[in-house]
Amino acid sequence: MTKPALRDWQSVRDEVRRRIHARQWKPGDLIPNETDLAAEFGCARATVNRALRTLAETGLLDRRRKAGTRVALQPVAKATLDIPVIRHEVEGRGQTYGYQRLARDWAVPPAQVSGSMRTPASRQMLHLCALHLADDLPYAVEQRWINTATVPAAEREPFLQISANEWLLAHAPYTHGDIAFSAAAADEAEAALLSCAVGAALFVVDRLTWDNAASVTKVRLIFPPGHQLRTAL
Amino acid sequence: MTKPALRDWQSVRDEVRRRIHARQWKPGDLIPNETDLAAEFGCARATVNRALRTLAETGLLDRRRKAGTRVALQPVAKATLDIPVIRHEVEGRGQTYGYQRLARDWAVPPAQVSGSMRTPASRQMLHLCALHLADDLPYAVEQRWINTATVPAAEREPFLQISANEWLLAHAPYTHGDIAFSAAAADEAEAALLSCAVGAALFVVDRLTWDNAASVTKVRLIFPPGHQLRTAL
Repeated sequence: MTKPALRDWQSVRDEVRRRIHARQWKPGDLIPNETDLAAEFGCARATVNRALRTLAETGLLDRRRKAGTRVALQPVAKATLDIPVIRHEVEGRGQTYGYQRLARDWAVPPAQVSGSMRTPASRQMLHLCALHLADDLPYAVEQRWINTATVPAAEREPFLQISANEWLLAHAPYTHGDIAFSAAAADEAEAALLSCAVGAALFVVDRLTWDNAASVTKVRLIFPPGHQLRTAL
Repeated sequence: MTKPALRDWQSVRDEVRRRIHARQWKPGDLIPNETDLAAEFGCARATVNRALRTLAETGLLDRRRKAGTRVALQPVAKATLDIPVIRHEVEGRGQTYGYQRLARDWAVPPAQVSGSMRTPASRQMLHLCALHLADDLPYAVEQRWINTATVPAAEREPFLQISANEWLLAHAPYTHGDIAFSAAAADEAEAALLSCAVGAALFVVDRLTWDNAASVTKVRLIFPPGHQLRTAL
């Protein structure tokens, strides 16, 4: 009796996942190569490739160029986070977006900021503070430093009509960066802006982006109590 | 004068990114197809494909099967989060991992838990509370409900030597799930376990996993003040 062919990559993915869950293929096991699997499943090798690549991206398989594909020994769940412009995020929730520039000034940043941005410690940088709103309620406070040596056009932008969050994405693309999530107690200024108690637990996102070797911007986004960042696993 | 050929996919990726940053290709523009780009760059079409795929994964390009590849109109930054077993996470920081099971009992979960896990509202579920340590200091509190209809083997596991966090990954693989990050104020029990003040801002991870249509487990991980979850952009 021949098995029915698996036509699409999703069916191949499901069958490979089934074998791993059923421990037919155990953690650390080398699984058959793509050519053999394609022959067994009656599909194109590219179909198998797509399925295995997807499972590797979720951490279930461990693919090595020459050593073949193994069932992951220490499966690491992977989640992909989309980090949209805040205006798009708010509008995506079906809410009306609002924006208030609170401050735009030049200042020498704290040593921790110039250190992480690799800018001269005594050089003034463009500093912004803004409030993002959703349906007229505070959605996030944005505190930002911009390296105008990397983004000279920012020197002429007042950021009154458009947030730096949105302006930079259009005017200063970045090559890489890092992002950190944490919790922080609201200080007096944050509590006033976010309409919460001093000391309330706030969700905080810190982001630093680079255009190759030059830092672009360092931003802290502070969200009111109850804010959640969700994604699929 | 002929341009030097771009040999590897990284060079192709960098050149495509340069053109987008230089606004030679603007947001919304359709870029040349892979065959034309391969001819221009003097490389294989697969090399171009790999480069474009990578840029699409970071949100810079928007690829449609039939409509071709465009420069993204609303670039969305994407970050991939690795979510390892807590023991591996602690050991990866070069610290010594410790584990204490605090409670293992059967209880009817709050309606919010049975509702999101789609289990009968009045059915008892396996409930666990545990403390993870790094170099003998509290690293995270784990509060967990396990659906033993999906994972019957958990009924016989005492979770004294191994955390449910680690045991489930080996014994109850999941097909999908969701994860949420937020901040919460420490209650008295959390403050005592995490050696912090009541009301301190704690970083919280909520995760719900499924094996196809059956829920596997719902877990809340609570981290002490100062904890950061970091990843590359």
